[in-house]
Amino acid sequence: SVVNAMTADFLRSAYGGESMAHMRYLIWADVADAEKMPNIGRLFRAIAYAEYAHADNHFRVLKGQVGDFTVPAGAVFGIGKTVDNLQGGIDGELHEIDQMYPVYLETARFQNEKAAEKAFHYALEAEKVHAKLFKEAQNVARDGKDMDVGSIYVCNICGHTETDHLPDQCPICGAKKEAYKEFK
Amino acid sequence: SVVNAMTADFLRSAYGGESMAHMRYLIWADVADAEKMPNIGRLFRAIAYAEYAHADNHFRVLKGQVGDFTVPAGAVFGIGKTVDNLQGGIDGELHEIDQMYPVYLETARFQNEKAAEKAFHYALEAEKVHAKLFKEAQNVARDGKDMDVGSIYVCNICGHTETDHLPDQCPICGAKKEAYKEFK
Ligand code: FEO
Ligand code: FEO
Repeated sequence: SVVNAMTADFLRSAYGGESMAHMRYLIWADVADAEKMPNIGRLFRAIAYAEYAHADNHFRVLKGQVGDFTVPAGAVFGIGKTVDNLQGGIDGELHEIDQMYPVYLETARFQNEKAAEKAFHYALEAEKVHAKLFKEAQNVARDGKDMDVGSIYVCNICGHTETDHLPDQCPICGAKKEAYKEFK
Repeated sequence: SVVNAMTADFLRSAYGGESMAHMRYLIWADVADAEKMPNIGRLFRAIAYAEYAHADNHFRVLKGQVGDFTVPAGAVFGIGKTVDNLQGGIDGELHEIDQMYPVYLETARFQNEKAAEKAFHYALEAEKVHAKLFKEAQNVARDGKDMDVGSIYVCNICGHTETDHLPDQCPICGAKKEAYKEFK
């Protein structure tokens, strides 16, 4: 943990930078594969894993410090018990649902940016399901229990998330059932 | 792709938010497992995968727009050809090596934050290797060739990255060879 606000700021900033590096290296790995450079693809994935370790290190130093310092709305940092981490999940999702994505979506429409509009719409609709699932999980975690849930299905196009039942078609983006990844 | 700077701003912001959500859900999943709540752990991992899809969507709308709009130093967005993506990797790593981590590390020392100092030190040293590897990859990708490399080993403690040869001990953090994950 940390006691100084400036060091805490820098840990949060470094966590953000490493999380974004992790993500773009995974995406660029797929591009390298498509260009028939599988070894460079593997290099991107290996280094993405290193960035995961960096992000994890920075985040863990912030352990137990969710909300200890002033942070931007919707930003969630640190590690608590699962019941607290689920509150972090709920807070982040609700910020996206109530504030962030509605403004982003409205702007994309206003500026006639069709591709951005679709990306924001997909995320906004999926986050509503995420907030609901985190609340269900927190209701049982509060009693020290695990959730009673079977397979969880996630649409790889829009992120729609469904428990126990594989949809025939994604209700958000219309993808076929083959687009769903199962977490069992 | 987008033509408006404000929509581009929001895509970058949403990419950052989703990348950080993806990462913290993976970390919180491990916490849930440790609390003997494996189903909640699985829920966190499934939703982390959904955030990956959201981040990927936002990033891909920025395709080919690396540097098209003014972005903060060290921030890298968008998708080009692999040779360009490797330049993005080099730029991001060099910013961390030359600017970001030296300032963060100096601050952690000045404020006597030992845990943060270690996390920043590990990252700074690992990034030097990353920049070098991306340069090597770019030198061959420029000729349309793949990299000639065997297994890539990554230390799960500090992110140290080594090609072709598993170190006996991590030169950055001193971890034993068992800490290395192999990408083959
Ligand atoms: Fe459930 O945040 Fe894309
Ligand atoms: Fe932790 O950026 Fe290689």
